[in-house]
Amino acid sequence: HYLTLHIPAALPRRPCPMPDPHPLPGDAPRPADDPPPAGQGAPDPPPCKITTLLTPHPLDVPSFSAAVGSPAAGAVSTFVGTTRDSWDGKPTLRLEYEAYAPMAEAALGALAATAAGRWGLTGFAAGHRTGTVGVGEASVVIAASSAHRADALAAVAWAIDELKATVPIWKKEVFVGGEVWQENAEGRALMMEKRQRGAG
Amino acid sequence: HYLTLHIPAALPRRPCPMPDPHPLPGDAPRPADDPPPAGQGAPDPPPCKITTLLTPHPLDVPSFSAAVGSPAAGAVSTFVGTTRDSWDGKPTLRLEYEAYAPMAEAALGALAATAAGRWGLTGFAAGHRTGTVGVGEASVVIAASSAHRADALAAVAWAIDELKATVPIWKKEVFVGGEVWQENAEGRALMMEKRQRGAG
Repeated sequence: HYLTLHIPAALPRRPCPMPDPHPLPGDAPRPADDPPPAGQGAPDPPPCKITTLLTPHPLDVPSFSAAVGSPAAGAVSTFVGTTRDSWDGKPTLRLEYEAYAPMAEAALGALAATAAGRWGLTGFAAGHRTGTVGVGEASVVIAASSAHRADALAAVAWAIDELKATVPIWKKEVFVGGEVWQENAEGRALMMEKRQRGAG
Repeated sequence: HYLTLHIPAALPRRPCPMPDPHPLPGDAPRPADDPPPAGQGAPDPPPCKITTLLTPHPLDVPSFSAAVGSPAAGAVSTFVGTTRDSWDGKPTLRLEYEAYAPMAEAALGALAATAAGRWGLTGFAAGHRTGTVGVGEASVVIAASSAHRADALAAVAWAIDELKATVPIWKKEVFVGGEVWQENAEGRALMMEKRQRGAG
């Protein structure tokens, strides 16, 4: 169920689906796969690059920053989630992440498009690792670029919370003396049940 | 007037002066150069690393992320300010930064100590480049790490605003057809005047 895309330089890119910065609530959404016509009237908006990745391989953090780079950007903000050495006072051995891949990829893509449109970003990238992640290693990376600093900062802070809330990826903490599923453990149980029913 | 410290691996480090996370307004401040006694009573707090740098050389962004790395960190947040390709609709050629170095270094150090103490960080690093910075190059880097994500994110967002407001570094935008001093141009004029008077 895992994508095996690897980085760097091979990060998949999609054109930004929403070049309109800060759309108002009443605005009609633009179709995601319909880029604005070129060479007509107003100058082109700054190019926006969107990158999402779900991978069992180590996340190469600099490649995410590079993926959002743009000559129109004055700011690049990033967030990296890493495995801590302790959990509830007990030494952590590792984390294990399990994703429902098709849904996780769709949710990551939706999150990226929302962030890019809402903050008028010049670039957005999000990646999540699956499988075993050792202490000090990265499990999740978010990067955003924008003309002015407030937009990139706000987009990243929003995106990591949104990712935790909406993307079906579950975390098992393995520490000295035990293990426990974290964050949305009920959602995972439900998904496993459905998956078994589908397979049985 | 520029420091010529270079990176990576040579980033100057100071021990965190304020190991107490989120001190309350009424708390007595701890002396900055008085580390807590080792091996007495309570376990040591997670080590906190503080790094600040003012340099005319290119900023190596990954070395700032690396400088805040800690096995106790579950989150690393960074912000990078870069030279955009346009200013007020005109193509930018380059930015030039001038710092009043002794005061800028002191202000960076104070900012770092405040951030580390207020958000209980496991690491904080800030660097600013001086001199000419070409389009796409980094002029400023902030990095913070913490056990939980909200602290690193908040510290970085606060620190970049605080840096712009309190650290005496001035920016000249050189674009096609002209140039202009940005951000606190009056402060710069005053400083230049004082400097000339001191030299005359």
